[in-house]
Amino acid sequence: MRTVQWDRGQLQLIDQRRLPARLEVVSLSSSGQVAQAIREMVVRGAPAIGAAAAFGLALAAFESRATTTEALVGDLEDAAAVLNKARPTARNLSWATRTILDAARDFSGAPAALRDHVLAGAQRLADRDVETNRQMATLGATLIADGDTIIHHCNTGALAAVDWGTALGAIRMAHEVGKRVHVLVDETRPRLQGARLTAWELDIYGIPYEIICDDMSGYFLSRGLAQKVMFGADRVAANGDVANKIGTYMLALAAKDNDIPVYAVVPTSTIDLSLQDGTQIPIEERDPAEVLEIQVRGESVMPADARARNPAFDVTPHRLLSAIVTEMGIIQPPFRSNLPRIMVA
Amino acid sequence: MRTVQWDRGQLQLIDQRRLPARLEVVSLSSSGQVAQAIREMVVRGAPAIGAAAAFGLALAAFESRATTTEALVGDLEDAAAVLNKARPTARNLSWATRTILDAARDFSGAPAALRDHVLAGAQRLADRDVETNRQMATLGATLIADGDTIIHHCNTGALAAVDWGTALGAIRMAHEVGKRVHVLVDETRPRLQGARLTAWELDIYGIPYEIICDDMSGYFLSRGLAQKVMFGADRVAANGDVANKIGTYMLALAAKDNDIPVYAVVPTSTIDLSLQDGTQIPIEERDPAEVLEIQVRGESVMPADARARNPAFDVTPHRLLSAIVTEMGIIQPPFRSNLPRIMVA
Repeated sequence: MRTVQWDRGQLQLIDQRRLPARLEVVSLSSSGQVAQAIREMVVRGAPAIGAAAAFGLALAAFESRATTTEALVGDLEDAAAVLNKARPTARNLSWATRTILDAARDFSGAPAALRDHVLAGAQRLADRDVETNRQMATLGATLIADGDTIIHHCNTGALAAVDWGTALGAIRMAHEVGKRVHVLVDETRPRLQGARLTAWELDIYGIPYEIICDDMSGYFLSRGLAQKVMFGADRVAANGDVANKIGTYMLALAAKDNDIPVYAVVPTSTIDLSLQDGTQIPIEERDPAEVLEIQVRGESVMPADARARNPAFDVTPHRLLSAIVTEMGIIQPPFRSNLPRIMVA
Repeated sequence: MRTVQWDRGQLQLIDQRRLPARLEVVSLSSSGQVAQAIREMVVRGAPAIGAAAAFGLALAAFESRATTTEALVGDLEDAAAVLNKARPTARNLSWATRTILDAARDFSGAPAALRDHVLAGAQRLADRDVETNRQMATLGATLIADGDTIIHHCNTGALAAVDWGTALGAIRMAHEVGKRVHVLVDETRPRLQGARLTAWELDIYGIPYEIICDDMSGYFLSRGLAQKVMFGADRVAANGDVANKIGTYMLALAAKDNDIPVYAVVPTSTIDLSLQDGTQIPIEERDPAEVLEIQVRGESVMPADARARNPAFDVTPHRLLSAIVTEMGIIQPPFRSNLPRIMVA
């Protein structure tokens, strides 16, 4: 099944908080539920939350009691505002709701027809996500050599998108075309998307891996034990600065310090040319409980009254990236001139 | 009480695996038990395992049935070999056993007197550790400005030594002399010494702190939210390369990338002039179970058959260090010429 899919009037999501212990699917029937699912990370990964938000607008369309097309568009705008606020960093979320809203505003039929039109638009966006990711994966796989060990941060696989994913899609494609790859999986504190989700996906694909703590990648890079670093992104600024899951910046620094290539793999929907550089990307800070709640042998490890900080993303400066892989091509530096070229292609 | 202390024929250690949930003291009565406690990290921290090993030799002396001084020295040598192997990276362990062994070899009295002599030597080594650390703390505190936020890795406080500690000792001393300090505590995966032990100590000292995941320090450094980075070390090579808890290298890289000063705080017993550079420092790789065993809400987060890697230390190249703080003085680069000067002072 897909990570995000529509089934008889409901949005079905794989509950990513339960993996790898249990593969559970939740069914959502309102756009408010979708916003909550995005906020609570039932669904996560920039492309996946984009698709989920698009279907959230389809649910909003069917929920709306508007009797005119204009009123229905107004209800969709309200729902989009709530969805956009669920998580601020990923570009794909507001890109998806804007794509759907623009189509709704251009629509000239009756409200009932607009409801179907919105759903069809969300379906198209989800299908296109799969196709986009497959193209990215194919291009990204060309950067991987037979025998490579790749350090990967967070989860960027099928679970992070509708299917295939971004960086992990490229690794999976390299494996499928017969290259031997080995993945060092950053566990990705605090939510442990690497240890939970990427390891689970790699098991399914039959790709050998080892989980490492996030503070270990420098060790492997400095000893020549990894040949590539790959990750996705939540937003790319016009100069190529990349906001991605917290820890990406330190990983990219360690790779650069050892002359190991660093690739961000992103759909063009993640690129935000309206932002000059990474300092303009809003960075979400989440509940400190996500940091504090880990246990060993059923026992808390942190003092009972401990305080914590929990920024969910950081910005990797463009100078640390070897290339940005998109579905439109592999973009080389300088990104400020090369990114706009691919966006209008 | 001290982290490591002798009490009526037994070595008492605070069991650091149980903190912060429970403050438990274990009593050891044989050198084999001491080696096991070091291996299993009941006691950890380079100065603390040095002192524990010294007392381990005192236990070996009392265990030995040797009737000649020569045979007793032989038994001590055997016990030292076992203790030294318990953890390979920290210099202080073999430094401590060699200090005790050298004194035993120079001793010319009867076996019974040598037993007391070894114990007195271990006591002196532990007392000197406290004094050394207090001097380091006093010197290190001069580097901290009023109002500083300091990122700290692993645990380097009283628990990592007999008392006071190294980097955390400097932070504690800055607090005690009236400087306002705030600590961002790297949780320090996989064993979580920061989240468990450093947070616990800071609570006791009344120093404000927040726990962060190890992959977050780059975020705080790049946003000007930290003014200093401080850590201890397990071994320092002649060129100033520093082996310390895994993750130190990436933290130092992130500090350097943002022009934030980086200080390693170590007793001279951690400095190993026999090693030309960090590539010669043996790096312990521990049981992958330490990475895999974390839970959230009582449930494992990693796939049941997941593999992992667990290097326990990494090497931070000397070029990333602003200074090395010892009890003999604050050593500036170039370390290759300045370290030997302080060692013979």
